[in-house]
Amino acid sequence: MSQQAKRVVLVSRPKGEPKASDFRVEEYALPAPGQGQVLLRTIWLSLDPYMRGRMSEGPSYAAPVPIGGVMEGGTVCEVIASNHPGFVRGDIVLGRAGWQTHALSDGKDLRKIDAALGPVSTALGVLGMPGMTAYTGLLDIGKPQPKETVVVAAASGAVGSAVGQIAGIKGARAVGIAGGKDKCDYVKSELGFDDCLDHRDPDLSAKLKEACPDGIDVYFENVGGEVFEAVFPHLNAFARVPVCGLIAQYNDTAPSVPKWAPSLMRSVLTKRLTIRGFIVSDFAARHGDFLRDMSQWLREGKLKHREFVTEGLDRAPAAFMGLLKGANFGKQLVRVGPDRA
Amino acid sequence: MSQQAKRVVLVSRPKGEPKASDFRVEEYALPAPGQGQVLLRTIWLSLDPYMRGRMSEGPSYAAPVPIGGVMEGGTVCEVIASNHPGFVRGDIVLGRAGWQTHALSDGKDLRKIDAALGPVSTALGVLGMPGMTAYTGLLDIGKPQPKETVVVAAASGAVGSAVGQIAGIKGARAVGIAGGKDKCDYVKSELGFDDCLDHRDPDLSAKLKEACPDGIDVYFENVGGEVFEAVFPHLNAFARVPVCGLIAQYNDTAPSVPKWAPSLMRSVLTKRLTIRGFIVSDFAARHGDFLRDMSQWLREGKLKHREFVTEGLDRAPAAFMGLLKGANFGKQLVRVGPDRA
Repeated sequence: MSQQAKRVVLVSRPKGEPKASDFRVEEYALPAPGQGQVLLRTIWLSLDPYMRGRMSEGPSYAAPVPIGGVMEGGTVCEVIASNHPGFVRGDIVLGRAGWQTHALSDGKDLRKIDAALGPVSTALGVLGMPGMTAYTGLLDIGKPQPKETVVVAAASGAVGSAVGQIAGIKGARAVGIAGGKDKCDYVKSELGFDDCLDHRDPDLSAKLKEACPDGIDVYFENVGGEVFEAVFPHLNAFARVPVCGLIAQYNDTAPSVPKWAPSLMRSVLTKRLTIRGFIVSDFAARHGDFLRDMSQWLREGKLKHREFVTEGLDRAPAAFMGLLKGANFGKQLVRVGPDRA
Repeated sequence: MSQQAKRVVLVSRPKGEPKASDFRVEEYALPAPGQGQVLLRTIWLSLDPYMRGRMSEGPSYAAPVPIGGVMEGGTVCEVIASNHPGFVRGDIVLGRAGWQTHALSDGKDLRKIDAALGPVSTALGVLGMPGMTAYTGLLDIGKPQPKETVVVAAASGAVGSAVGQIAGIKGARAVGIAGGKDKCDYVKSELGFDDCLDHRDPDLSAKLKEACPDGIDVYFENVGGEVFEAVFPHLNAFARVPVCGLIAQYNDTAPSVPKWAPSLMRSVLTKRLTIRGFIVSDFAARHGDFLRDMSQWLREGKLKHREFVTEGLDRAPAAFMGLLKGANFGKQLVRVGPDRA
């Protein structure tokens, strides 16, 4: 009597926006752990913009998901069977089980979650990869000084919300950009940003100028496209632009030629800008600092976060397609299984 | 009996390439130094690509030269009269007297040149602003590690020649790009670069791939335009791009949209590039280190340099127009007056 497991595989590489038919939900027999392996049951699956890159071929910092392969992703899982000396049944671990209900692991990519730090789902959000992306990109590249102005887009999202709050903790002025009035209100009133603008506003660039009377010293780039175009003219001399994502461009097929492109390098020179791309693993050495500071700020109530939960693995493709359009409001998670089996 | 002095003033702001008619050589009566002033006689005038920027209006790191104003420029001068307690007749000083035979100064922008470090003209080249641009941009932003590959364009010029040689001193592989066989031969055989490519080669990008089999870790950007386009695909993960100049773009009128533009930010992200603009004064604190290291390397024969001398202030406009097209071969200087009056 083999139990059934479920997984979401990549069927075809999307041209432009992913479609439902680019994914397939498959059932398969629950595998048994071999020597040195654990069997994991997924509780939470994180959906993140970078996954769009893994669906495409072409140069990136990671290999693409193969056609027919399970979609990759960070997960919080319960160990339900263990042939590994380091893990026992019932351990809650952070791992990369991907878009599936169960997975085998040799334990190398697993980290036991300290439930004392917060709800285990935060290991995928504010205390996980998105939070650490915000923390390291802002502090190690952006280096905001007191009274400086930090602008971040997708400000109600997992990364952006942390960026603005950390900027505020460090004494900088935080201005968010988000999609729609509800998100902007939340960013201002709940997250405590100094201001938040709607990226759908046709006068975004003019509004930015008003919201940033002293110009922009740090632009934390996680969206690209038209938002970058609106921000660009307001960058101050010596501004820093950490680049961790370009969600607005991920579905581009023929890359459009942005209006700002010709002047980009000239402004790099005349304004002495620093533009630096990074991914969170570049700052692995900062993980201890990150957990210490962020969990403390969470406990002190200085750092707020919001989760946006989609129920059931079957709905992961739709949730992911929504994420790329900003349909989520807070950190996008998929509830794959209950906290305890 | 008032002695005559001469100066070159800006008549009109060039559209595209500067023309002879954008400049005018004027004679004027030699002024007398007031209280606290010195009268300078120019020996050497430095011509540098940044001067093209000063001819135009529009945002930059420095104000433009006004119409009718004397063209700005770094100079080596002799003090020929002094009402300033810090200077005596016969002092040789580095200053910014501009494109003229004589100038008054209150002494604040003057620095006495230590002739023991080398010929006084080197204060405008390898031991001056171009040398320090190379030194700080390469070491403080580019940070080449042993065995890494450094690429620099305008490799026979004042900045580029120093960049490649310093890279070599630091144990990196230096690949130059220059205009024509003579310059490339010089860069390889005299300056000791590991390789040098002709930027006129239509297969520049393919040749770069051959010359840089391990990719490019540092691209010292001082030209922009098509060279950047050729270099860009070969940048390695974590490559650094110090940007000190864009000479190939300075005469652009309607900014062309370069082919690489759409992918620039995407590559910044996927390759985790650092692109940083700077001007030499940003690193003023490094001046002591610069003079110590560079003068030592000069004395030890590790650092070679070449001067390209145009005789007479009247020829400065033509020499400058040539510089923008790469007609010079080495650091472009104008001999304005004799070493000693």
